Amino acid sequence: MTNQKRGKRSFQPQCPPVINAWASIAGKKESEGPLKGYFDATTKDNVLGEKSWEKAEIRLQQLTLETLLKKAHKTENDVDVIFSGDLLNQCVGSSFAVRNTDLGALGLYGACSTMAESLLLGTMAVSGGFAQQVVAMTSSHFAASERQYRFPLDYGGQRTPTSQWTATGSGAAYLSSSGSGPVIESATIGTICDLGITDANNMGAAMAPAAVDTISRHMKDLKRTPQDYDLIVTGDLGAIGKSIVKEQLEALGFCVEHRYEDCGVLLFDEQQKDVHAGGSGCGCSAIVLCGYLLNRMMKGELKRLLFCGTGALLSPTTIQQGESIPGICHAVSIEMREG
Amino acid sequence: MTNQKRGKRSFQPQCPPVINAWASIAGKKESEGPLKGYFDATTKDNVLGEKSWEKAEIRLQQLTLETLLKKAHKTENDVDVIFSGDLLNQCVGSSFAVRNTDLGALGLYGACSTMAESLLLGTMAVSGGFAQQVVAMTSSHFAASERQYRFPLDYGGQRTPTSQWTATGSGAAYLSSSGSGPVIESATIGTICDLGITDANNMGAAMAPAAVDTISRHMKDLKRTPQDYDLIVTGDLGAIGKSIVKEQLEALGFCVEHRYEDCGVLLFDEQQKDVHAGGSGCGCSAIVLCGYLLNRMMKGELKRLLFCGTGALLSPTTIQQGESIPGICHAVSIEMREG
Repeated sequence: MTNQKRGKRSFQPQCPPVINAWASIAGKKESEGPLKGYFDATTKDNVLGEKSWEKAEIRLQQLTLETLLKKAHKTENDVDVIFSGDLLNQCVGSSFAVRNTDLGALGLYGACSTMAESLLLGTMAVSGGFAQQVVAMTSSHFAASERQYRFPLDYGGQRTPTSQWTATGSGAAYLSSSGSGPVIESATIGTICDLGITDANNMGAAMAPAAVDTISRHMKDLKRTPQDYDLIVTGDLGAIGKSIVKEQLEALGFCVEHRYEDCGVLLFDEQQKDVHAGGSGCGCSAIVLCGYLLNRMMKGELKRLLFCGTGALLSPTTIQQGESIPGICHAVSIEMREG
Repeated sequence: MTNQKRGKRSFQPQCPPVINAWASIAGKKESEGPLKGYFDATTKDNVLGEKSWEKAEIRLQQLTLETLLKKAHKTENDVDVIFSGDLLNQCVGSSFAVRNTDLGALGLYGACSTMAESLLLGTMAVSGGFAQQVVAMTSSHFAASERQYRFPLDYGGQRTPTSQWTATGSGAAYLSSSGSGPVIESATIGTICDLGITDANNMGAAMAPAAVDTISRHMKDLKRTPQDYDLIVTGDLGAIGKSIVKEQLEALGFCVEHRYEDCGVLLFDEQQKDVHAGGSGCGCSAIVLCGYLLNRMMKGELKRLLFCGTGALLSPTTIQQGESIPGICHAVSIEMREG
């Protein structure tokens, strides 16, 4: 079976998993941006009737999973395994969301690259014949994230122009070995790149080298060019990281003009208050993919999409200890095939 | 290829990955216990010449990876992917350990079940033909863990009799599609069980139901009994969790007498100061497996081992918010095959 492997870190499954359904639930601010109308549901506030932001994030994942199963015409009992992760310490958003269910649960930590990581591992599970029905899911929550990584909101700290806005939202995809929908036809596993950025308010710049590394590695391993894709989308570098990636890919000879976007840039309008460089958080690329992008594929507007989840692997402790910020990027190629 | 799947959450790979090599580095206290002499190296102190405990844990993983590659007669360039995780917030022990290397890095969070989770996913990667050479690695560090989850050591808090001692140590295994060594012949993915335990100092009891669920599910899915194993080992429930698991398995009709152990109980001697219920932490089951157990297999003392990593999926925030503690257990069956 080793012929599924392409190069050192890419693979192309012989039986690609089908994305049968997808679901996204977006926060209030996220549903007021340019992608409004693409999400399955939006929250009226960021508390969702719960007593804490962390519990609200858990609820968000539960609601997203319910919506996904409904859209896939499945029940929890049909699912073999869920691959999920989030930004909360010890990934409690993901594990509490599925406690006391019958789902096999494999917990991931890839910071904001988690949606791509969960799709990539879900592909291995389904295509390798280890599971038949898999859910890939992530979430993030602005207020829970701010107080954990930076300051409690009540502190009223001023945000720098390079900072990004952690999206409140959750996205999930249903993968199986059969059925209809787009397929995951190849994937590239990222390495951890750290070029020495130490500014925790400029994560786009910290993650950009990993995105460039993974995208160029993907093209090399699969013997492709950016022209083989209708869209290459990173998630979520924001405006600053996006411009670095574009410049560096072009310096390497990969012309991505008109076919490169970033989930953090797509999610918000520059005019939205305090958004600054754009969206971030596991939930950002998850809702952009499971709301906007997959729906565009279904409409026939995109035939092949390279979805590149990008994560900044910092912790508040490493920042306080003067460490720089490592970044990672995993890529999955999603394709609509003729019926 | 779907015939690799057994039941809902178990699988039995057609081409089982071979564990070509393993390595373990243990802290000072861990190397003074009953398993001394089984580790590849021990640390003189818990700082390893670094400026913080977190940096010491990163160094521990780096040294373990170096030792593993030396024992496998490989270099970093030979490895396609590393599956790793740890207990530090945002799993920085694992990601910082391999930054700026050429290793594909897939980050996991399974609390103390991570060693089993990394072996399980490594099995999918190798047996599915998605990667050829894979490293599975975890670590934990007593002092870094205490200050993150409970109190800074300087506070001098008294430890309860049910509490466990987070092991300082790191273990790693080298999986590939060929070569010699024990093989991972089957695996069972765990579900998240929460029976309402809220005492963060009694994690063994919180994790026990997940261990019982996974072990009984494994037997059912593979149509086996405990007698098909020379040893079933949970890691790391400690003395209290171990007695619960034994009792409950026997109530379910699985007689595990003389063939059930727990990594947390194996690692320390009851007489060792402050150890109380036994060892815990991702590093505990990792060094017991990659030090003691795999070496016993090589000597012919064990032919088939069911290694069941157990994790308590709490966070300090969920405990403060009054939540109970969900537990998880993933199992991999490791076998020495003839010739």
